[in-house]
Amino acid sequence: MSASDDTDYVNKIIYYMQGFLVTKAMSSASKLGVFDILLNSNTPLSCADIAEQAGCTVDGMNRLLTACVELELLNATQENGKYLYSNTHLSRMCIAKSSPKSLYHIIQLMSDHNYLLSFYMADSIREGKSQYQKLFKVNHEHEDTFSFKLLYRSEEDTLRFIESMDDIWKVCGKDVTTTFDLSHFNTICDIGGCSGAVAKLFISEYPNSRVTIFDLPEVLKITKTHFVFPAEKRISFHEGDFFKDPLPEADLYVLARVIHDWNDEQCLVLLKNIYKSCKPGNIRGRQRSPSQGRKHLKHSSGQLKILSIKQFWSTAKDN
Amino acid sequence: MSASDDTDYVNKIIYYMQGFLVTKAMSSASKLGVFDILLNSNTPLSCADIAEQAGCTVDGMNRLLTACVELELLNATQENGKYLYSNTHLSRMCIAKSSPKSLYHIIQLMSDHNYLLSFYMADSIREGKSQYQKLFKVNHEHEDTFSFKLLYRSEEDTLRFIESMDDIWKVCGKDVTTTFDLSHFNTICDIGGCSGAVAKLFISEYPNSRVTIFDLPEVLKITKTHFVFPAEKRISFHEGDFFKDPLPEADLYVLARVIHDWNDEQCLVLLKNIYKSCKPGNIRGRQRSPSQGRKHLKHSSGQLKILSIKQFWSTAKDN
Repeated sequence: MSASDDTDYVNKIIYYMQGFLVTKAMSSASKLGVFDILLNSNTPLSCADIAEQAGCTVDGMNRLLTACVELELLNATQENGKYLYSNTHLSRMCIAKSSPKSLYHIIQLMSDHNYLLSFYMADSIREGKSQYQKLFKVNHEHEDTFSFKLLYRSEEDTLRFIESMDDIWKVCGKDVTTTFDLSHFNTICDIGGCSGAVAKLFISEYPNSRVTIFDLPEVLKITKTHFVFPAEKRISFHEGDFFKDPLPEADLYVLARVIHDWNDEQCLVLLKNIYKSCKPGNIRGRQRSPSQGRKHLKHSSGQLKILSIKQFWSTAKDN
Repeated sequence: MSASDDTDYVNKIIYYMQGFLVTKAMSSASKLGVFDILLNSNTPLSCADIAEQAGCTVDGMNRLLTACVELELLNATQENGKYLYSNTHLSRMCIAKSSPKSLYHIIQLMSDHNYLLSFYMADSIREGKSQYQKLFKVNHEHEDTFSFKLLYRSEEDTLRFIESMDDIWKVCGKDVTTTFDLSHFNTICDIGGCSGAVAKLFISEYPNSRVTIFDLPEVLKITKTHFVFPAEKRISFHEGDFFKDPLPEADLYVLARVIHDWNDEQCLVLLKNIYKSCKPGNIRGRQRSPSQGRKHLKHSSGQLKILSIKQFWSTAKDN
């Protein structure tokens, strides 16, 4: 290996080695309100101004802003020898809490909850099971598998999770609802429909559709309290446990970001439950155009078994 | 923003949001010995074989291998419908514990220690100080700043840190020692010289040089025990605290990966200590070629104030 090969190799490993710093720089700037402060300002701001409004030290903020510029989350321009910062299009649209398509909640959820849980990744691979018990220091019902009981351990935690799912569906959901022409389905059941973000996309895309959101009572209670639904009542709610309870009648059952949470045995229970509810003779959705379909599916096939690393929804090989 | 713009933006944020998973996938595979198992095998191995040798579940290992293929840390080939895995050049050269230029120790240090510490990044920016006390639940002398006392709290921890520094210098150090023609300097003092990796590069590059490694007694004790030095004795050791103690006489003082650990006040104390020891009339190193020099400096200027995010040694703006 030559010296220049060395540099290339080492840079790649170092970039991977420090991936957590990228996560933390973005989520810290988001948590401290940097993007919102800049969104609310008419002009670019200095580090000292941002630090003051965010209640932070200037030295700490200076380091964070430098990182955000490097990550193309902020622009920096020089004026009279001083740097002034502004949001990039990306952070203006998606990262500030008040962005039109804000991913604020899911950024914070990943940076707090998933970050700590992933500290035990090697143990998880060795044991083939979730390390939730280490993080929460509790025993739970399905000890060997992920349990939503822990994500839903308080109303506040439940809301945090539902808001995160709402964030991600608001920006990605249209790919799921439009990849196939689903206009032939009049009644749709969104299993684990959570905040209703996908249901809203369905009724907006398909004027004849009605959507039932099927989810746990504790989820639907919060969804109904904290999220706004159209007055026309084409969306309804159905409380239940999708492993045990009968599903409402529907022409189409949607599983979006559900299957990857469960092991094969649990998935079979769920799929059998859906099979039991399916009526014969359903119309299959037509893929709109092969190339468009493939492109979308690459990014949005929430129905496939997944380990999200390089791409959000890159499909794991089932070998 | 169009739907396709959405996808681009969202993918970028999601990639950043999940940077910690990249760190953890690489470090977990390294910790579990995946790269070493493959390095010691004459043929590509199946997931089941790797899982067995690593003492892991097949399901867990399958997910990890898929992630490593996606990150180009492993190759996967299909044979009779089964995937077989082998190391890429990158992991063969740099990631296995027994790789010729292994970065194993620093990968583990970052993934254990720095990962947990960075959980508190937002607090650190707010308060402008290290969050070590949260991680270690101790009070330490310089409460507002990073203290090596915590990295060196046991012999085992000290060795872990020294091995990590040795890893990174073995692959990056040549850039530092060769960017400038330093052949005019006969006596070199490497301040905070740690494992001696940089000292070894100096004596190999400059046949007339002698290098003194200056570091804390607890560091040098471990360096002398665990690292091998050439028999010709051109490298010597000098115990001391570079903030307080007089430095040995030298034609050239080297500060590599030192300055970025300390605040401005502490850096001034250190630089004044060096200034006091400098003899007048020293020859300046000549940069070997402007383009080569710049390229190298971009990756190796450990003397500049740094926040390592996108590039390992990208220089932070001092505004």
